[in-house]
Amino acid sequence: MTVHTGRHFLQIPGPTNVPDRVLRAMDMPTMDHRGPEFAEIGFAVLSAMQRVFRTKQPVIIYPSSGTGAWEAAIVNTLQPGDKVLMCETGQFAVLWRGIADKFKLDVDFIPGDWRHGADLEQIEAKLSADKAHKIKAVCMVHNETSTACVTYPLDVRKILDTVKHPALLMVDTISGLGSLEYEHDAWGIDVSIAGSQKGLMLPPGLGFNAVSEKALAVAKANPGMRSYWDWQDVININKAGTWPYTPATNLLFGLKEAVKMLEEEGLDNVFARHKRHSEATRAAIKVWGLETQCQEQGAHSPALTAVRMPDGHDADAFRKIVLENFDMSLGTGLNKVKGKVFRIGHIGHFNDLMLMGTLSGVEMGLDLAKVPHRAGGVLAAMEVLKGRDAAQAPKAAVA
Amino acid sequence: MTVHTGRHFLQIPGPTNVPDRVLRAMDMPTMDHRGPEFAEIGFAVLSAMQRVFRTKQPVIIYPSSGTGAWEAAIVNTLQPGDKVLMCETGQFAVLWRGIADKFKLDVDFIPGDWRHGADLEQIEAKLSADKAHKIKAVCMVHNETSTACVTYPLDVRKILDTVKHPALLMVDTISGLGSLEYEHDAWGIDVSIAGSQKGLMLPPGLGFNAVSEKALAVAKANPGMRSYWDWQDVININKAGTWPYTPATNLLFGLKEAVKMLEEEGLDNVFARHKRHSEATRAAIKVWGLETQCQEQGAHSPALTAVRMPDGHDADAFRKIVLENFDMSLGTGLNKVKGKVFRIGHIGHFNDLMLMGTLSGVEMGLDLAKVPHRAGGVLAAMEVLKGRDAAQAPKAAVA
Amino acid sequence: MTVHTGRHFLQIPGPTNVPDRVLRAMDMPTMDHRGPEFAEIGFAVLSAMQRVFRTKQPVIIYPSSGTGAWEAAIVNTLQPGDKVLMCETGQFAVLWRGIADKFKLDVDFIPGDWRHGADLEQIEAKLSADKAHKIKAVCMVHNETSTACVTYPLDVRKILDTVKHPALLMVDTISGLGSLEYEHDAWGIDVSIAGSQKGLMLPPGLGFNAVSEKALAVAKANPGMRSYWDWQDVININKAGTWPYTPATNLLFGLKEAVKMLEEEGLDNVFARHKRHSEATRAAIKVWGLETQCQEQGAHSPALTAVRMPDGHDADAFRKIVLENFDMSLGTGLNKVKGKVFRIGHIGHFNDLMLMGTLSGVEMGLDLAKVPHRAGGVLAAMEVLKGRDAAQAPKAAVA
Amino acid sequence: MTVHTGRHFLQIPGPTNVPDRVLRAMDMPTMDHRGPEFAEIGFAVLSAMQRVFRTKQPVIIYPSSGTGAWEAAIVNTLQPGDKVLMCETGQFAVLWRGIADKFKLDVDFIPGDWRHGADLEQIEAKLSADKAHKIKAVCMVHNETSTACVTYPLDVRKILDTVKHPALLMVDTISGLGSLEYEHDAWGIDVSIAGSQKGLMLPPGLGFNAVSEKALAVAKANPGMRSYWDWQDVININKAGTWPYTPATNLLFGLKEAVKMLEEEGLDNVFARHKRHSEATRAAIKVWGLETQCQEQGAHSPALTAVRMPDGHDADAFRKIVLENFDMSLGTGLNKVKGKVFRIGHIGHFNDLMLMGTLSGVEMGLDLAKVPHRAGGVLAAMEVLKGRDAAQAPKAAVA
Repeated sequence: MTVHTGRHFLQIPGPTNVPDRVLRAMDMPTMDHRGPEFAEIGFAVLSAMQRVFRTKQPVIIYPSSGTGAWEAAIVNTLQPGDKVLMCETGQFAVLWRGIADKFKLDVDFIPGDWRHGADLEQIEAKLSADKAHKIKAVCMVHNETSTACVTYPLDVRKILDTVKHPALLMVDTISGLGSLEYEHDAWGIDVSIAGSQKGLMLPPGLGFNAVSEKALAVAKANPGMRSYWDWQDVININKAGTWPYTPATNLLFGLKEAVKMLEEEGLDNVFARHKRHSEATRAAIKVWGLETQCQEQGAHSPALTAVRMPDGHDADAFRKIVLENFDMSLGTGLNKVKGKVFRIGHIGHFNDLMLMGTLSGVEMGLDLAKVPHRAGGVLAAMEVLKGRDAAQAPKAAVA
Repeated sequence: MTVHTGRHFLQIPGPTNVPDRVLRAMDMPTMDHRGPEFAEIGFAVLSAMQRVFRTKQPVIIYPSSGTGAWEAAIVNTLQPGDKVLMCETGQFAVLWRGIADKFKLDVDFIPGDWRHGADLEQIEAKLSADKAHKIKAVCMVHNETSTACVTYPLDVRKILDTVKHPALLMVDTISGLGSLEYEHDAWGIDVSIAGSQKGLMLPPGLGFNAVSEKALAVAKANPGMRSYWDWQDVININKAGTWPYTPATNLLFGLKEAVKMLEEEGLDNVFARHKRHSEATRAAIKVWGLETQCQEQGAHSPALTAVRMPDGHDADAFRKIVLENFDMSLGTGLNKVKGKVFRIGHIGHFNDLMLMGTLSGVEMGLDLAKVPHRAGGVLAAMEVLKGRDAAQAPKAAVA
Repeated sequence: MTVHTGRHFLQIPGPTNVPDRVLRAMDMPTMDHRGPEFAEIGFAVLSAMQRVFRTKQPVIIYPSSGTGAWEAAIVNTLQPGDKVLMCETGQFAVLWRGIADKFKLDVDFIPGDWRHGADLEQIEAKLSADKAHKIKAVCMVHNETSTACVTYPLDVRKILDTVKHPALLMVDTISGLGSLEYEHDAWGIDVSIAGSQKGLMLPPGLGFNAVSEKALAVAKANPGMRSYWDWQDVININKAGTWPYTPATNLLFGLKEAVKMLEEEGLDNVFARHKRHSEATRAAIKVWGLETQCQEQGAHSPALTAVRMPDGHDADAFRKIVLENFDMSLGTGLNKVKGKVFRIGHIGHFNDLMLMGTLSGVEMGLDLAKVPHRAGGVLAAMEVLKGRDAAQAPKAAVA
Repeated sequence: MTVHTGRHFLQIPGPTNVPDRVLRAMDMPTMDHRGPEFAEIGFAVLSAMQRVFRTKQPVIIYPSSGTGAWEAAIVNTLQPGDKVLMCETGQFAVLWRGIADKFKLDVDFIPGDWRHGADLEQIEAKLSADKAHKIKAVCMVHNETSTACVTYPLDVRKILDTVKHPALLMVDTISGLGSLEYEHDAWGIDVSIAGSQKGLMLPPGLGFNAVSEKALAVAKANPGMRSYWDWQDVININKAGTWPYTPATNLLFGLKEAVKMLEEEGLDNVFARHKRHSEATRAAIKVWGLETQCQEQGAHSPALTAVRMPDGHDADAFRKIVLENFDMSLGTGLNKVKGKVFRIGHIGHFNDLMLMGTLSGVEMGLDLAKVPHRAGGVLAAMEVLKGRDAAQAPKAAVA
C-alpha cells in the first residue's frame, strides 16, 4: 500500500476542505452551554446564519446531518396524507422523497432524467391544475449534488405567485448555500434546508432550517408529532442565546469563524469564484471530449461538475485509479448513474491552483485508466482562470 | 469586566473537559465518508463503542444531542398509545417523559422527590399488576444529572425477570457511560442511550443507542413513522463502515481517540477514579455542613454531586460569584430545584488536583457569597484523595 | 505505571503552561519569511516586544534558548579580558558567569548565600573603588529562578548613577519579563535578556535582547568575533520586517498572540496577579511550618517560590511522590540546593484555582512523603485569594 | 486587496509545507524538560536524527536557525587563522563564507559561476598542493538552495582520500537532508549541518550538527571560545535525554512526528519522490523554453528548481504577479541572481497534484506577466508524473 505524502485532494462535492482557521476555532475547550459567554456565541452564529441565508426570519441550527434538516422541514409543516410536489432532479431529490414517504406524505413526484434542473413547466401545470390547493408544499433541490444541475428557487416562486398557489416553497440548498446566490427572504422561500459540510466549509454535524413567517404559522397549526426537530421549541430558547438541548458547541465555534471568512471574502466574491471554477472545469471537460451530466445550458452548478464516462468505462474504476495514484477523492456516481458518472467538487475553501491540481489529477487519471480523451483540458482551464476565453487555449496536438 | 487568565474550570456535569488529544484528533482534515480510509474509522468507532457499552449488539451513532438518542429509542420501538413506565427521578426523567408525551405514548410516571433513585418498589408493583403486559417499556435514567442520584439498571432488570414482564428496558446512561459501571448485555438492557459530551470526553454532537436483539425485533415490527432515527437503516449501512447520511466525521475522529484514552487508563480504573472523586467531594460537603441533594446512601453519583443551598441563599447567585471570581462554571439547579441546588461535575477528563482546584473554588465562593458553612472541606477531601478516611482530616478551628 | 488523566499540572518555574490560544496560533501553516504577509507579523512582534520591555529601543529576537540571549549580550559588548561585575545570587547567575568565563572575561563574582537578592552594598563598594572604570558591565539576574529571590534593577541603576560609573547594566529577566514589573528604558537598563518560555507563556525557542543606545554604541566599537548573535545585522534587516536568517516563524505567530493576551489582561494586572499568587503560596508555606529559600523580606519572587525541605528529607524524593501521585511537575533544586529545595512555579498562564490545585498537591505530597508539617496551608492560601489577611485563616487543629 | 481563499501554495524552497500531523504534534502542552517523560522524547528524537543522517555518531540539536548550525560547525573545530577551503556554489556558500570571515578564518574561496556544483578539479588541485596540510577543513554545500545545483559529498570525500588529506569534511545539507540521499557515516562526513524547515517538514527553529569521531577529537583539542554551540556540553547532557538549557520542546514534539512520517513513507521513497518532481518540473521548463539556473547535467536538485527569466523580464515582478493572482509564494533570486531567477520548491510534504497546481500557477503567471514562453509545460510534467517520458507529451500548438 502506498503511503501518501502532501495534502490529500478532497474533491468530493462535500464534505469539503475545512480551512485551518475553522479547524483551529473548533479545537478549543468546550464551554458551559448555559453560561453568558456561550450566549454571545449563540447569538453570533444565529445572526451570522441569517446573513448567509439573507433572511430576517429565524434560522434553526440542529446537531444533525442535512438529512435531519430535511426531516425537520417535513415534520414541522406537514402531516400524513398531505400532498406535496417534488421533482426527480437526481439522487438527493429521491432521498428526500424517501423521507416524505416514510412520513406518509402523498408525493407527486415529477419525473426527470437527472440531466436537467426541475421541470418548471410540469410544476406550473401541476400547480395550476390544483384548484383545491391540495398541494401543501413544493419541495425542490437547489443544487442537485448528484447531477450538478441547478434549479433556481426564484423560478419556482414566480410560478407559485403567477398561479396564486399557497403551497409552501421548501428548498434544499444543502450544497448550494455559501456557494451559489441564495436569498431566503427576497425569493420568498418558506423553508430553506442546509448543512455545514459544503459551502459553509465546516465538518459535517450541523443541519439548518430557515423558516418564513408563513411556514412558522403552518407549523404552529400542525398537530403532527415531533420533538427533536420542533422549530418553536428551539426558537423560543434561542432568544436566550442557547438551545433546548446541549448544542454541538465546537461546531458552532467553527461556524462563527467560517461565516467570518465568507464575509471577509464577500459573499458575492465567493459566488463569483465558484462560477469561475465551474467554467474552467467545463472548459477542460470540453477539450477532453467528455460530456457533463448536466445537459441544460444555464443549469450548470458552480459548486461541482458531474462528468459522464464514455460507454464501456467504469467511473468508479477511474476514481480508484485517481485515488491510488494521486491521492485525490472524487465523488462517486449515485444510484442510477453509479459507475457512469464521477463528480468533481470545486466548492468551499478552494482556489485556482487547487483546481489546477484537481483537473491535472483528472487528466492524468483518464490517461492511466485508458479512458479515450484528448489531452490539454488543463490548458483550457488555465485560460479561463487567467480571465480569457477558453477557446483561446493552445490546443494539444498529440504527436 | 475581568479578563480571566489560566484555564477555565468547566465543572458543570457535561459538557466536560475535552482532552487535548481528543481536540487534536478532531482538528484534522475531513475525509471522504464513502472512501476506504473512512470505513476503517467507521468500523473502529463502532467496535470501540461496543466495548464501552459492553455489548456484542449493534451500537447506533447519530449526529445529534443526547435528546435525539432518547427520541430514537422511542420512535424505533413504540407507537402512539403504547404504555410506558417512567420514574420521576429528576429533570432528565421529566424531559424524556416530555418526548414520550409528544409521541403520544401513555406514560405512567411514578412520582419521586428528586432526592433518590427510581422507586423500585413502585416499579415492581406496577409491573406485577400489569398482567396484560400493556407496559411496553420501562424507561429509566441511570445517572440523573439533575440530582446526582443513581438508579442501578440491574435492579430493574431483576424486577422484570422476577415478575416475568416482557417490557423493554430502556436506560438513559447519557451522563453515566464512561464514568459508571455499565453492562449493556450482562444487565439485559434493551436500549441504552448515551451522548458524547460526558464521560466520553468529547464535545457535544453525537448521540448513541445500543440495542438488544429483542429491541431490534420490536423495532422491525413497529410500523411507526421514522426516518433519521431509524435503527435498521443505519445498521444496514454500517456494515460497510459508513452511514446512510454524512456522519459527523471529525467527532468520530475524536471518539476513536477518546475511547483509546479510556482503554489506556482501563475502564475499571476510570470507574474507580470517579467514585473516589465523588467520595472526596462529599467529604468536603460534610465538613462545610451542607447537604447533598441525593439523600439515598448508595445512590450517590460518581460523576457529579448536587449540593443544596441553605435556605435564604440562592444557588445561582453563588454560582455567579464563583464564575466571576474564580472562572469556574458550576452546574445550575434545574426546574424545581432551580436556585436551591448547584452541581459539581467531577466527570470525564479529570484528576485529583483539578478536583482540589474545584473544591477550593467552591469553599472560597461559599465564603464570598456569605453562605454559612464551616471551613476546611478541602482538608477532608484531601484525606480521601490520599487514600485515608476523611474523618482523619484535620479540623479547621476558626480563630 | 499509572496512566494519568486530566491535565498535567506543570508547576515548574518555566517552561510554563502555554495557553490554548497561543498553541493554536502556532498551529498554522508556516509562511514565506521574505513575503509581505510575514513582514506585517515581523513588525507586529518587534513592536509588541518593545511594549513588553517598555522600551523604544530595538529588541532583538533570536531563535535560541535564554542561554543564547546571555551569550548574545556578552559577545556584542565585551571582549576577552574585559572586567565584569556579577553577583552569585543563585544557579542562573552561576551559569551566566560560566559563559562569561568561556568568553574569557575577567569576572568579579560577588559571593552570595543563594537566599537573598544581589548584595547591593558590595556592588556599590566595587563600583566606587573602580576609579579607572575597568568594570565594563554589571551583570545581574532580575528574578533568580533557582532561589526565588528578586534583585531590583533600578536599585543597581541608582548605584551606578550615584557613583557615576559608566559600566553597562545588563539584566537577565528571563523569568521576570511578563511576570514582574520591568522598565527597560525608565530604569536605564543597557541590555535586557529574556526568553519565551516563562512569563511570555510560549514554548521555549526564542531568546530576546533589548538594547540601549549606549549598548549599541559599545557593540559598534567592539571588534570581538560574532555572527549569529550580532545585534547590528539583525537590527538592520528587521527594518524590513524580516531577519537575516529564517526566523522561528511559528513561535513568532505564538508570540504575537501571547502579547495580545498579556495586553488584554493589562500588564499591571498581570504583575498584581503574580504577586497575589506568590503571597498566597507563602501563606500556605508558613502554615506548613516550612521555610522559603528566600530569606529577604521584599525580595520574594512573584513568579515562583522555592521551599526548603526539613533536614533529613530529600526534595527530589518528595517531587517524585507528587509527580507519581498527583501528576504535577514541581521544580527541582539546582546545584548547591539540589535535594534541599523544591520550587513551585506560579508564573504565566495561571489562576486562583490552578494555584489551589497546585498547593493541595504540595500539601498532600508532604503528607505522603512523611515530611513533618502542619496541615491547613491551603486554607491560609484561600484567605489571601479571597482578598483577606492570611492570618484570618481557620487553623487546622489535627485531632 | 484580494482576500485569498483555499490553501496558500508555499513553494519557496523552505520553509516548506508543514504536515497537519506535525503541526498537531507541536500543538500540545509544553512539558518539564527535566522530567522522565521528556527524556523519552529526547532519546527518541536524538536516535531519529541519527537514522535520518544515517550515522551512529552524535547528532546535536540546537534551538537555532540553520545559520546557527553553520556557526556551530566552525566554532567547535576551527580557530582564527585556520585555513579552510570553500567553493562559491551560490548564495549559501557566500553566507557561510561570511561567517568564516567573521570568525577570522583564512578562507580559500574557489570561485564559481552559480550554475554548477562545486569545482571538484579545483578542490583536488588545492588539496594536492597543500602538502603542509594547512587546510583544516573543506566546507561544501550539498544542495545549493540559491541555484538548485547539487554537489555530491562523496565526490569530495573521494578526493580527500585520494590525496590523503586530513582536512575535515564539513557539509551543509540544510536543504538536502530528508530530500536527497545522505549518508553521514558511509560518506565519511565529519560535520553535517542541517535545519528543521526543509526536508524535515518542520517550522524553522532547530539547527543540527552530526559529528564524526574525528571532528569530536578536533573539537576537544580546540581552545577557541564557545559556549552555546559547544558540542561536548550538549553531548554530555544528552546522555540523560535532556539538554544543557531549555530545549525547544514543542519543535522536538514535531520532529518526532516528522521523522515518523518520513519513515512511514520510507526514506528511499522520499528521495525518489523528490527526484521525480524535479524531473517533471524540468520537463515543464523545457517546454516553456526557459532555462534552469543549473547548467550541469547530473547536478539538478531534486528539492527545488531555479529558473532563469528571459532578458528584459524581472523575476520578482513575475513572482509578485503569481502571489497576487494565484496565492503562491515562489522563491526569489538571491544576491547576484536577484531579479534574474525565481525558484520553485518541490521539497518536503508534497505530492503530484500539489506540483501540478504549482506548475500551473507558474505557467499562468508567465502568461500574465507577458514573459515569452511556449504553453503546455504542464502537459510535459504530467507525462513524467504518469511515469512516461516527457517527450511523449502532447505539444501545445497555439492557434
